[in-house]
Amino acid sequence: MTSKLDVLGLGNAIVDIISRADEAFLIQQNLQKGSMSLIDEERAESLYRLMGPVTLTSGGSAANTIAGIAAFGSKAAFIGKVFDDELGIGFAHDIRSVGVEFNTPMSTFGPKTARCFVFVTPDGERTMNTYLGACQGLSSNDLDADLIQSSEITYLEGYLWDPPGAKNAFRTAIKIAHSAERLVAFTLSDAFCVDRYRQEFLDLIADGSIDVLFANEHELLSLFETSDLQSAIHALQGRGLLAIVTRSAKGALVIHDQGASAYPAFPIDNLVDTTGAGDLFAAGFLAGLAKKLELAECARLGAMAAAEVIQQIGARPKRSLLHLAQEHGILK
Amino acid sequence: MTSKLDVLGLGNAIVDIISRADEAFLIQQNLQKGSMSLIDEERAESLYRLMGPVTLTSGGSAANTIAGIAAFGSKAAFIGKVFDDELGIGFAHDIRSVGVEFNTPMSTFGPKTARCFVFVTPDGERTMNTYLGACQGLSSNDLDADLIQSSEITYLEGYLWDPPGAKNAFRTAIKIAHSAERLVAFTLSDAFCVDRYRQEFLDLIADGSIDVLFANEHELLSLFETSDLQSAIHALQGRGLLAIVTRSAKGALVIHDQGASAYPAFPIDNLVDTTGAGDLFAAGFLAGLAKKLELAECARLGAMAAAEVIQQIGARPKRSLLHLAQEHGILK
Repeated sequence: MTSKLDVLGLGNAIVDIISRADEAFLIQQNLQKGSMSLIDEERAESLYRLMGPVTLTSGGSAANTIAGIAAFGSKAAFIGKVFDDELGIGFAHDIRSVGVEFNTPMSTFGPKTARCFVFVTPDGERTMNTYLGACQGLSSNDLDADLIQSSEITYLEGYLWDPPGAKNAFRTAIKIAHSAERLVAFTLSDAFCVDRYRQEFLDLIADGSIDVLFANEHELLSLFETSDLQSAIHALQGRGLLAIVTRSAKGALVIHDQGASAYPAFPIDNLVDTTGAGDLFAAGFLAGLAKKLELAECARLGAMAAAEVIQQIGARPKRSLLHLAQEHGILK
Repeated sequence: MTSKLDVLGLGNAIVDIISRADEAFLIQQNLQKGSMSLIDEERAESLYRLMGPVTLTSGGSAANTIAGIAAFGSKAAFIGKVFDDELGIGFAHDIRSVGVEFNTPMSTFGPKTARCFVFVTPDGERTMNTYLGACQGLSSNDLDADLIQSSEITYLEGYLWDPPGAKNAFRTAIKIAHSAERLVAFTLSDAFCVDRYRQEFLDLIADGSIDVLFANEHELLSLFETSDLQSAIHALQGRGLLAIVTRSAKGALVIHDQGASAYPAFPIDNLVDTTGAGDLFAAGFLAGLAKKLELAECARLGAMAAAEVIQQIGARPKRSLLHLAQEHGILK
């Protein structure tokens, strides 16, 4: 079967509600800086009341990655659940406006569109609090089997383990993708997320559900409950898995059964906002993989996309990553 | 009667929906760069469909000014109409979160919360298209007479002439303010707005409705249908009016019956985004006026607030203007 799509993403469909906050606020509210915490509706309302003036933009980790893949001119689609409210309409608008196919039915009863309250401290770090809302309604019914079968790669985020129904959708999507001999890629998302679902994630790796794994150093160390990167790398090998470990300014490692290669970070002029670095590294790498490029080229595209997004505010690229890759001579 | 409030603002309660666009898009959509156009619901929907990914923030000219006045630590309130939807709740959240009193009842039927589609071209200019929505429901019933009577200054925007019902509210507010011997300040808002309501604005000036007038050069020239600034200045004099004419990098003129004084712009390091320059000049000037400062000090506070807002993205100040004024030795 020829592929209609390069990458299909499955993830939480979230609107980011961003405001500034000082360190004292984080302490007072018992928020761990740099982490993503899940909150319920009541806590969402009380946090919102305490926030300063806000800015709203579409977010969601896999959704950011998929928007990045579209910015490479690749054919991308997204599956995620919003409610039919203004935030949901806005999320759908934003992802479609960059050329992503997005047709998941909006929910019309139950909780509202998911929102992530993002507190930006003066040091530029972001502390996130997610109310999953409508994402909790994602189920296998929302999967489009044709879409999955016709995608080179189906990409899933670890955060999808949080909404109760999504886990089944996740497992079903893997089965459909693999039955069509397509690749399944997965990101560990967050060290705390790994903490919540360590054994299940290890099982997914062990049973061959995942072909391509994305993790940053913290997430990988958390997965194997070690403080030694080398032993975590060894633990990944011999499983028929391609693993990409992002290490911020130290670049990235690409690990497979035959060995591991290190690739440098892309040079930047000015660090503005690190949000989305991991999401966009995955975008570049997957865009390259779908084009059947060499792993070194995939890593270079990932590093370039990550460098681009940390030199702007927000987690979705504001200019064409295809043009940028052409300017840098990485793509034709 | 002692004043409970420094400044009360009456204006359109609008959420800005901002996206990038190129010059070709403006031409194709017949949008005049740098202008504010009014659009109906149908056009709002079609423009939104054509927009790229968006960012949402609270806007509205007088609302931005009032947020600025609160950032000076002054006591401020706002009257404006939103619908009880997510955008309306967001608008209310944002203005209250900076300490502004905002209690206008939300409408629960009729059009939704007003939105302004802002297209930012690569040169940093902003082209605005406003769907007035719920603002059209503002009426004299929404006025809080006690609030007006207890405010040193009631500030009104020319844009309020656009929603049909607001005009009555506007005139009623002026009567209440003047009967309590309070000042009425007014901004001409936009040269096209002046074009739409020239005679009515001239009548407001002639009949003493306005005590303090804000205008930029274009608006003032449009008001008097002249290309000569001097003759426009002369036309303002002899009416018992205080007029402030902002001239971007050329500073500002303060005009009264006894003469006119020029004040320089505040030095800046880096021009980021000119949005809100006029709104924030008014904020600084009015904050000073409510404190009964000298006109030169009021102009300096206005210039400082304008300089601050053009060195950041967005039209509402992100840090304390009171602290900034103290650092510059303008306020104690």
